[in-house]
Amino acid sequence: MGSQTSVLLTDLYQLTMLQGYFDREMEETAVFEFFVRKLPHDRGFLMAAGLEQSLDFLETLQFTPEELKWLADSGRFSRPFVDYLERLRFTGDVHAVPEGTIFFPHEPILRVTAPLPQAQLVETRLINLLHFQILIASKAARFVLAAPGKLLIDFGLRRAHGAEAGLMAARAAYLAGFSGSATVLAEHRFGVPAYGTMAHSFIQAHDDEREAFVNFAHAQPNNVTLLLDTYDTEAAAEKVVLLAPQLKSEGIVIKAVRLDSGDLGDHARKVRRILDNGGLTDVKIFASGNLSEGRLWNLIETRAPIDGYGIGSDLVTSADAPHLDCAYKLEEYAGRARRKRSEGKATWPGRKQIFRRYGADGCMAEDLLTLEDDPRDGERLIQPVMRAGRRLTPSVPLTQSRTYAAGQLARLPEPLRRLRGAPVYPVKIADALTALADEVDIKTGRPGSV
Amino acid sequence: MGSQTSVLLTDLYQLTMLQGYFDREMEETAVFEFFVRKLPHDRGFLMAAGLEQSLDFLETLQFTPEELKWLADSGRFSRPFVDYLERLRFTGDVHAVPEGTIFFPHEPILRVTAPLPQAQLVETRLINLLHFQILIASKAARFVLAAPGKLLIDFGLRRAHGAEAGLMAARAAYLAGFSGSATVLAEHRFGVPAYGTMAHSFIQAHDDEREAFVNFAHAQPNNVTLLLDTYDTEAAAEKVVLLAPQLKSEGIVIKAVRLDSGDLGDHARKVRRILDNGGLTDVKIFASGNLSEGRLWNLIETRAPIDGYGIGSDLVTSADAPHLDCAYKLEEYAGRARRKRSEGKATWPGRKQIFRRYGADGCMAEDLLTLEDDPRDGERLIQPVMRAGRRLTPSVPLTQSRTYAAGQLARLPEPLRRLRGAPVYPVKIADALTALADEVDIKTGRPGSV
Repeated sequence: MGSQTSVLLTDLYQLTMLQGYFDREMEETAVFEFFVRKLPHDRGFLMAAGLEQSLDFLETLQFTPEELKWLADSGRFSRPFVDYLERLRFTGDVHAVPEGTIFFPHEPILRVTAPLPQAQLVETRLINLLHFQILIASKAARFVLAAPGKLLIDFGLRRAHGAEAGLMAARAAYLAGFSGSATVLAEHRFGVPAYGTMAHSFIQAHDDEREAFVNFAHAQPNNVTLLLDTYDTEAAAEKVVLLAPQLKSEGIVIKAVRLDSGDLGDHARKVRRILDNGGLTDVKIFASGNLSEGRLWNLIETRAPIDGYGIGSDLVTSADAPHLDCAYKLEEYAGRARRKRSEGKATWPGRKQIFRRYGADGCMAEDLLTLEDDPRDGERLIQPVMRAGRRLTPSVPLTQSRTYAAGQLARLPEPLRRLRGAPVYPVKIADALTALADEVDIKTGRPGSV
Repeated sequence: MGSQTSVLLTDLYQLTMLQGYFDREMEETAVFEFFVRKLPHDRGFLMAAGLEQSLDFLETLQFTPEELKWLADSGRFSRPFVDYLERLRFTGDVHAVPEGTIFFPHEPILRVTAPLPQAQLVETRLINLLHFQILIASKAARFVLAAPGKLLIDFGLRRAHGAEAGLMAARAAYLAGFSGSATVLAEHRFGVPAYGTMAHSFIQAHDDEREAFVNFAHAQPNNVTLLLDTYDTEAAAEKVVLLAPQLKSEGIVIKAVRLDSGDLGDHARKVRRILDNGGLTDVKIFASGNLSEGRLWNLIETRAPIDGYGIGSDLVTSADAPHLDCAYKLEEYAGRARRKRSEGKATWPGRKQIFRRYGADGCMAEDLLTLEDDPRDGERLIQPVMRAGRRLTPSVPLTQSRTYAAGQLARLPEPLRRLRGAPVYPVKIADALTALADEVDIKTGRPGSV
């Protein structure tokens, strides 16, 4: 799982194209860039994520003997080509923006410079890795902006789209500012703090709810969060109040209670009152249960006395926008800029750089998209990260990227922090870039426009 | 990937609950059932999928020494409990409906009967496996119903949510009636026929579009599908007409052309005319490019001359309904029926069976949900598939499940085949089931309702 998947996790056309490149010895340097074409509805920005997994994938790219035999036996490819695949490794360069960077449509966040077959072959999995984590980090950032000061935990594994989605959603959400995840493997693999309590089945398996609470408190004395809504939420809160002194005498402190159904704001108010009247003012209230962005905003706006939220399906499927219109496109081959001009899908040619300028308040003010060899004012967002198939520096620790991401969110201008109706952030196209696009169009036949 | 993921791909609360069960020696038989609570908007039915991967997961469930050490070092669990986890295997029974079965809300499609800790531990990954394939098979079935006689290919890997989503979406779509997938690994792993041609980058890497077509035809002489929209769709179609005789003289037949942008219906008509006028009446037209259900219906309804479709993001993310409200709930423990009564989330207790009745036309007419030991008329949908941790029969070949699924779709009553405004299919609740629910409610305190 993760980056160590089979190289056959790709589109067939990558391999059929490679056969064509092989036959004609088309191995000159190609430059591909990954970018998002447009923002989903009601979104003002995106957050870069998935770079580490992309670099892992490129560093370890290799066909196994079994896969090579299977390809040869498929009858689709020539024997010399399969022998060539056996030797194939990724030996190219990669430039990218750091994970956690805020970015906008048409800004390339990753560039691959490599012999054409290598740069082509990696397309499908690179998009697959980048697209999903960008999707989830960008979605998670919205929850983070909506609920300042609240504990936010990813609860989505069960309804994430498979194993890798569950794991990488936990990573991407943590990157964007979530406090942790219920997914144990995310702590094991990435150090994302794991959170968790009990399910309704734990209560149901006991003949008595109070007995279940006691059993759980004894089993997890340092992490006592009790689930209240299996039968009757407020009645369960009363049981917690009655139970607390007994547990306290054993040295066990109840940390929190969890609500998972019904009108969460209403239950939270009633439960808060019951706990406070019982002297349990330090016991936190944690809420979960099909929480969407909209329901979370509503609870925050109405000042529901809830200290933390478990967010599941809406986060890990990015339910309002479950996919992004993104692409990985050839911008240069054999020293010549290239441009696709398909309707609605035209691209900016050449190797590009993003220069970001900040206002007096320290917030992002404007980006300029231009060619790499056209130096301009501002922060250069795209940096070299891999040369000749090897990382330039060791993996960036996730906590470091998370701090960087928090800094990025802090520098978002106020209007872009709005969850609805955010304005369009200015990304200007430099003259050097439009001039190159025109030049490519004249050479290849007819004008196009982005 | 697939079923061979780490056992740590689970929610932390499964492990904390298991510590609680371990401390109290709560190891009696538990019965959990998986079901979907409600249909997404504008959906009339669901299709069962993911059973094979679920059984693989259960058969191979085991903690590795490294995982056990990590759990012990986490400080969350007692040493005797970690030793117990080392020995833990799945030794229970599973009952399920066959993959490809059409089903409806509240119908349990999988039942686990096992010692409580085992049945509890597997919850997260079982839901993760079943939810996603059901989601995609159910979505794919809509495309299949919408486009009878058309070639439908899954193109979604790059925008699927990670590696496993890409692979399993290909499997689930094929199960539901798609002809194949672009994902090579899906053929390698599951025998899903792989389809593929070329990307725009292949055209762009050549200095001349015609040269790119010739090169590709030589590299893949048995699979010549040419992509037309890199620069100008109709101009490319004219090139295909001029090129065909030369390739024919070399024994190479152009099978199809692909359109990937713009107004697909309009381009298809123009291209069809150009091809027909050029004598290429046998060359098929294949279309792709952000095709949603809505766009596909429109192309079908307006009789666009398109022979096949590549469906990507909309299929593999089930974009209109990217998650289902599903659950895996405790229905019995230690010989006693159990029931959760949380608001809006109450469950039917006990071990259940679905009896399906058919009309005179052979179509599904009505389901009856009742207790397993309450025999009724109709087809029993739930069958034993695993006993004492081992499959009762070898894996069902995917092609066999695909044939079964096609039979299920053929027996859908006409109104349920509608893609919008389908009526509610009748699922009746037997008296035996309501009586048991009442009985459980009286025993545990207060009435509830589903």
